[in-house]
Amino acid sequence: MERITKIMSSFVAALDSDEIFRLYESVPKGKGLRAKLILKIAKTSPKALNLAAIVEMIHAASLLHDDVIDDASMRRGKESFNAKFGDKTAIMMGDILYSVAFSKLAELPNSVAMCISNAVALLSSGELIDVKLSEFFNTDKNRYMDMIYHKTASLIEASAKGAAILEGFEGEDFALYGKNLGLAFQIIDDVLDITSDEKTLGKPALHDFKEGKVTLPYLYLYEKCSDKEREWLKLLYKKELSAQNILLLKEKMSEYGAIEHSIKKAKELGYEALRAIEKYEIEGLREIITQMIERDF
Amino acid sequence: MERITKIMSSFVAALDSDEIFRLYESVPKGKGLRAKLILKIAKTSPKALNLAAIVEMIHAASLLHDDVIDDASMRRGKESFNAKFGDKTAIMMGDILYSVAFSKLAELPNSVAMCISNAVALLSSGELIDVKLSEFFNTDKNRYMDMIYHKTASLIEASAKGAAILEGFEGEDFALYGKNLGLAFQIIDDVLDITSDEKTLGKPALHDFKEGKVTLPYLYLYEKCSDKEREWLKLLYKKELSAQNILLLKEKMSEYGAIEHSIKKAKELGYEALRAIEKYEIEGLREIITQMIERDF
Repeated sequence: MERITKIMSSFVAALDSDEIFRLYESVPKGKGLRAKLILKIAKTSPKALNLAAIVEMIHAASLLHDDVIDDASMRRGKESFNAKFGDKTAIMMGDILYSVAFSKLAELPNSVAMCISNAVALLSSGELIDVKLSEFFNTDKNRYMDMIYHKTASLIEASAKGAAILEGFEGEDFALYGKNLGLAFQIIDDVLDITSDEKTLGKPALHDFKEGKVTLPYLYLYEKCSDKEREWLKLLYKKELSAQNILLLKEKMSEYGAIEHSIKKAKELGYEALRAIEKYEIEGLREIITQMIERDF
Repeated sequence: MERITKIMSSFVAALDSDEIFRLYESVPKGKGLRAKLILKIAKTSPKALNLAAIVEMIHAASLLHDDVIDDASMRRGKESFNAKFGDKTAIMMGDILYSVAFSKLAELPNSVAMCISNAVALLSSGELIDVKLSEFFNTDKNRYMDMIYHKTASLIEASAKGAAILEGFEGEDFALYGKNLGLAFQIIDDVLDITSDEKTLGKPALHDFKEGKVTLPYLYLYEKCSDKEREWLKLLYKKELSAQNILLLKEKMSEYGAIEHSIKKAKELGYEALRAIEKYEIEGLREIITQMIERDF
């Protein structure tokens, strides 16, 4: 990951602006899931390293804009970039990272550039779909799955596919692996928002529901609970939750197996991901799935 | 231009989201300078038409973000997109248009994709350079020229070069034509901010100086005027101008030939643009220069 971080810095340094480079140093770096995935599949050829840096740069750009759109003041336990430098600088910095990433992407084979850039179109539409879906109490699991496909899974799908193309593997097999990994990843993220604490998450716990996001555990709970409990859930929607209500909500989640059910769904997707690539013997792709499901942040 | 507008709509329609398509219909369409330029050079092959639509889409995306960053409430005489739908929707819509444009760009030859995407990296850095340059009274003409190269000329340069590559011409000749056309275009824009009226501009006149932008006519005026007048100019900088001060400013501009000098500079750049491509016999490239210099909006 250190090599990838260096390549990313060199991309930004090539713009030849001290101002931009200084700002870039404050852009939060991700966990590097996408880069790790690419390097597991495509090894460490120069093209693979560049692809990993490009995808991490796209991911960083999307987080900069997401935090502006969500008015987020925290990112992974630290003050967010927009909170520190203002929304406008965050928008400009996001645009710069996107465009630098695309200009490097154009140097890779067209098939790889097409698969990554298509994913970014899905990802950016996903942000709008997410915002629209947060305007009302959505109870449709298909709309939730479609949204997390756009917003999270599409770029992971394209990362795996792009890396496979570079390595001469069948792109579609790895696309399926990446898509299911991405869906599972987002479901686990949504579970952790409920089960983890503020310190571990680096942001307030049970934040999603207050923000209008009816994630999978809430969808399962809503599906299983009584009419009276449904009314109660709707009353809590988009509100600041009292400690008592948080406790009650967690009890109800436990009573109806909502968390358990969500983790089960993520695991099923993880198995499906592994089935898609079982004919290839690539070390580490199973571990990525396992680690992702068992993580606590 | 109607054909280009249709292609742009088809790109957005392919995202298969009614919500996004409806919003897209409210995105202001530009004057189409870049598309016209591309079609003059590369005729109307499918690739040329796609390139024209891609570049106009990139331009539209950059204007959406610019208006958020500049807090603009008007765009070409109408309420701006961000004023109508909010900053967040404007950010998301800009991201969607950028990414759709890049995904279509990846279908064109690598050399074309590289030249356009490099320009977008310059363009987005240019926005940040512009904002930083508006924080103080800049008196350095080189910094002004560098900023307008990034912010305006780079994409016009890449449009001309990309079209030339598609048509099998020498890319660098057309890059030089496009670069000088772009610089001249921005200088005329900056002159019109002073000489034109609010109705013709579709935004308040003498807006740039209030926004912190020391454009070429102000730079010439500052260079030529007395120390006392320089102090007066600095007093007016970033302020709402009274009718009396507007009159006085225009008088001083006239006294020191600042507008005249700026138009002369734009014309010189226009001639340089034409010299770069004089060995090619392409109808309409001279007219683009003439029309651009003689326009009043």
